[in-house]
This record gives sequence, C-alpha cells and structure tokens, in this order.
Amino acid sequence: MYFGVDIGGTSIKVGAFNSGKLVEKWSIKLDFKTAEELVDAIYNSIISRYDSIGGIGIGCPGFIIDNFISSSANIHFLNQTNLVTLFHLKTNAKIRLVNDANAAALGEAFFCGYKNLLFVTLGTGVGGGLVINGNILEGAHGAGMELGHLHNDDVYNFTCGCGKKGCVETLSSATGLVNIAKSLVGKYKTSVKEPFNAKRIFDGAKENDELATKAVEIFSDYLGKALANACILVDPGIVMLGGGVSNAGEFLLVRVQEAFKKYALPIIQDTKIILAALGDEAGMYGAYYLVANKED
Amino acid sequence: MYFGVDIGGTSIKVGAFNSGKLVEKWSIKLDFKTAEELVDAIYNSIISRYDSIGGIGIGCPGFIIDNFISSSANIHFLNQTNLVTLFHLKTNAKIRLVNDANAAALGEAFFCGYKNLLFVTLGTGVGGGLVINGNILEGAHGAGMELGHLHNDDVYNFTCGCGKKGCVETLSSATGLVNIAKSLVGKYKTSVKEPFNAKRIFDGAKENDELATKAVEIFSDYLGKALANACILVDPGIVMLGGGVSNAGEFLLVRVQEAFKKYALPIIQDTKIILAALGDEAGMYGAYYLVANKED
Repeated sequence: MYFGVDIGGTSIKVGAFNSGKLVEKWSIKLDFKTAEELVDAIYNSIISRYDSIGGIGIGCPGFIIDNFISSSANIHFLNQTNLVTLFHLKTNAKIRLVNDANAAALGEAFFCGYKNLLFVTLGTGVGGGLVINGNILEGAHGAGMELGHLHNDDVYNFTCGCGKKGCVETLSSATGLVNIAKSLVGKYKTSVKEPFNAKRIFDGAKENDELATKAVEIFSDYLGKALANACILVDPGIVMLGGGVSNAGEFLLVRVQEAFKKYALPIIQDTKIILAALGDEAGMYGAYYLVANKED
Repeated sequence: MYFGVDIGGTSIKVGAFNSGKLVEKWSIKLDFKTAEELVDAIYNSIISRYDSIGGIGIGCPGFIIDNFISSSANIHFLNQTNLVTLFHLKTNAKIRLVNDANAAALGEAFFCGYKNLLFVTLGTGVGGGLVINGNILEGAHGAGMELGHLHNDDVYNFTCGCGKKGCVETLSSATGLVNIAKSLVGKYKTSVKEPFNAKRIFDGAKENDELATKAVEIFSDYLGKALANACILVDPGIVMLGGGVSNAGEFLLVRVQEAFKKYALPIIQDTKIILAALGDEAGMYGAYYLVANKED
C-alpha cells in the first residue's frame, strides 16, 4: 500500500492507495506544536490501519526543495524541517515531500491523463502548480508557479499577505473577491448580505445583483489576465481551476475564458481552461503519484 | 562534425563544432524566397566545407513544436514548414529545430554549466527561453517563455507588434527605450541626439543626461518587474540578459537588479541576474547542443 498525505491549515488528509485506486481516506486534526508530533500522528494513523507501508507521499504548504521545507508561512513549526528524516526514524519506506499546490497539480494531471498542466487553486489565497512532461516544476527556491504573487494590478493596489501590492491573490481569491465587492459598495445597488463572502457574491451575481455582477466581472477579468500572463510564459495548453472558489463552476469558467482571450497572445488563445476533477482529494492523489510512480 | 545554425532576420549563422568546441563559423545572407532555397543554401555551405555531417541543429524565429514551424512572424516563407523533412531530402543526418531564443537559452545554459536558466534577449523586441533540468520549455504552442508578450504595463499603453497593449517589449526592448525617451521629451532636459536609439540613450544616461537617465530608470524598472513576474512563476534561480541592449553592461545590470528586488517575493530575491556569456554565438551553440547531446 502507498499513502498520499495532504497537510492543510487545520487538518491532515490521508489516503490509502492500491494500484492507483484510493481505497480508504481519513483525516487528522492539526493541533500539534512540533514536526515530531505531526510525523508521529501521521505514521501512527497509517500503521494502526495497515501492516506495511510501500511509501508515503506528502503535500505540504510552504517552499519546498528536494524534500526540505525552507519555509512554511501557514504552519510555522514546519519551517526548516526535514520530514523525510523524521519519518525515517520510524520506517524505511520511501518518503517524498512536495508543496501542496504542486501535489494537487500532479494529482489532477495524472488522474486526467495530462502530461502538461497548469493547475490553479482559488481559495483564501491563490496557489499554482505546473506539471511539465509529467514532472512538477519545483523551482530553485521551491517557488515554482507561485501564481498568487504575480504582480497583476496597479489600480486597486490592495496589500497582499506577502507585504507587496497588486499580487494576483489580492483580487482573484475568495478574499480578493470580497475586497473588490467592498470597494464597490455605494457605487452599485446590492442585496447581497453582509458580511460578504465569495459564495454570497457569486450567488448574487447568478441572480443579477448589480454589485455582485460587477465584482465577479472584475474578479474574472484579473484572473483571466493572470492566466494569460502565466500561459505566455509556460504555455501548458491546459489550465485547470480548483479550490473553493472554483465551486462557482461554469458561471465562473465562461467569464474567465472570455477574459483570458482578451489578454492572451493569439497563438495561445485555444488554451483549454477547465474545472478541476478531483476536488479536495487532488493533493492526496498527487502525493501518492509522486511516491509511487516517480523515479528517485 | 556537428553544425549549429542560427537563422536571423537578415542572415544565417553557421558554426562547425567538434567535441563541444566551435572550430569554424560563417554566415549566409538571408535573401531567399522559399524554405527549399534556404535549406539548399545551408546544406551546400556545410557540404562544401566538410565531408560528413553528424547532425545539424537549427534555431529559427517563430513558434516551433516538435521541429515544425507553426508560424514565423519574421520569415513568412517558413510558416507551416518542416525544415527537417526538407533537410532529409539531402542527408540522413540528425536534424533538430528549435525557436531561436530557446536555442540561445540552451547555448548559454550548457556553455555556463547551468541546468536551469531563464535567458532573456533584449533587442528590437524581447525574447525569452527557459531551460529546466537541461531541457527547453517549448510549450504546447511553441510559445514557451514568450516574455516579450507578458502584460506588464497599464500606464504607457504603447501598442505592441502583436496588436495588444502593455506587453513587456513595448517598454523593455531597444524600441521600448526609444518609446519611453520620446514620451519624456519636453519634460526633461536632454542633449541626446535625435533620432533616438538605445545606444544613444544609454550613453546619455551614463553621462547623467536628465532625460536619458529617466528613460533608463523607467526601462529598468519595467524590466525588473517583468523578470520578477517570470521568476515567481518559474523560479529558475538564474536570469541571464543577452541581446543588443545588454551591451549596456553593468550600468544596465545594477539598475535591473535593484528593480527586480523591488518587485520580487522575498524567497526569490537572491535570484542571480547576470549578463550573457556567448554574445551572438549563443544560438549556434544551443542548436549544436540540441542535436549533439540530446536524446531523441
């Protein structure tokens, strides 16, 4: 059995895979203070269910190079840790570690049969993962496809969590959509309930609420521009949208596709933009593929 | 013997390589009307000098996928042609074709011993090539690292050759620098001679000409922003500046490095930005490496 682990901000998802199939999944609440405790919990949860471990793949937030977490903004106790070494105190099984968005990208790419894929996760922030010829682009600093921090705006100038202004995720995330909607209050009529959130705004737009419609239009325009900019650099042929905001579905997709065409160079305008297939299991799948299918 | 060919807008450079060393180079004036004539000229120039051909690598402007030129804006008669097939009417030697900026990227990367490199050529336009793990990122449409068409500006809004506004090459090319300088006339004092060109403006800036200094400052700021945006997506660790404008040397480099730091996410701020090593031989070297060293 191989195991795919997806470490999130509040919980850890673990999937048990057999011959490419997810046969069981469970989650562990993330309430640890050290990397050792986290590794203990994952290892114990696996070994209490299965006798042997073929390998464990792990997706984790942060900048990761060659299995080493150089920094993790969300889970501070993982900064400068080597989870592989910690796991190897317990098992000789193969352990592989990768950034969570990259894991999701790899999961979707393998599952859907794409050798090249730009995967974009639209949640509280914006994450990205690029698969080229079946391999993740990790980058020299583990910053490969940090799409959320592409400079994409000189108009709204919202401050990003990274300290800079104009990053993609200041506009094209759930937080960004709320930022935009708030900036439109007083300028457009609305019956969207406060406090604003991404779902309420999308629901409003679907019912032609004036403010919500305008907010989604701006959101989609900036996202389309960001994707056009990414595609003119890495030309993946296929872009996949995942994460909570992508639950807005076709309604979001057609608007983003239209904006993409507005900004994209003619040669790449037939790039497919599609919705993710695996939902919140993508990270587990990708972590599994990484450890089960990749050469060392 | 292996041969590296670099097809440019006005001439074709050919290099003969032996065990990694460039042993002879010559050029052919580009005054052909068909792809057949071009192939004839290259083949005849080689076979008149050398008895046997181990392989021919070719760098060529345009969007190229798997040796096929889907479009070439500069050399129209090469649109939708397969130069490999044409060469194979004359020789059974291995023939490989790649975009010219990608060839230059590969040439610099191999020559300097970098497995990962973002190469940027600053000339009349702006080209880019990305080498990841020793391989060129060609892209699904052959548009990999078309940095010149990254949307980078909503202030000047100069129209690009591609028809869009705000592309990197409307500001950060030789043409772009002239665009910027012209827009500053009347606002800053200058003794730079008209008609403006990139060399005159850089020379002026080096002597503290007010307008030229401001133009180079704006040019460098936008270029630094473009490079920061590219690096947050592909995180190469090393960026190399080539092309005619890069002859401005250290004077340009320090300004671009400073602007890069202003826009780059902290994790990638130590990305090295350096000047190209091979000058106008990079394309020949890259085309040679492609055919001599790469697996099929």
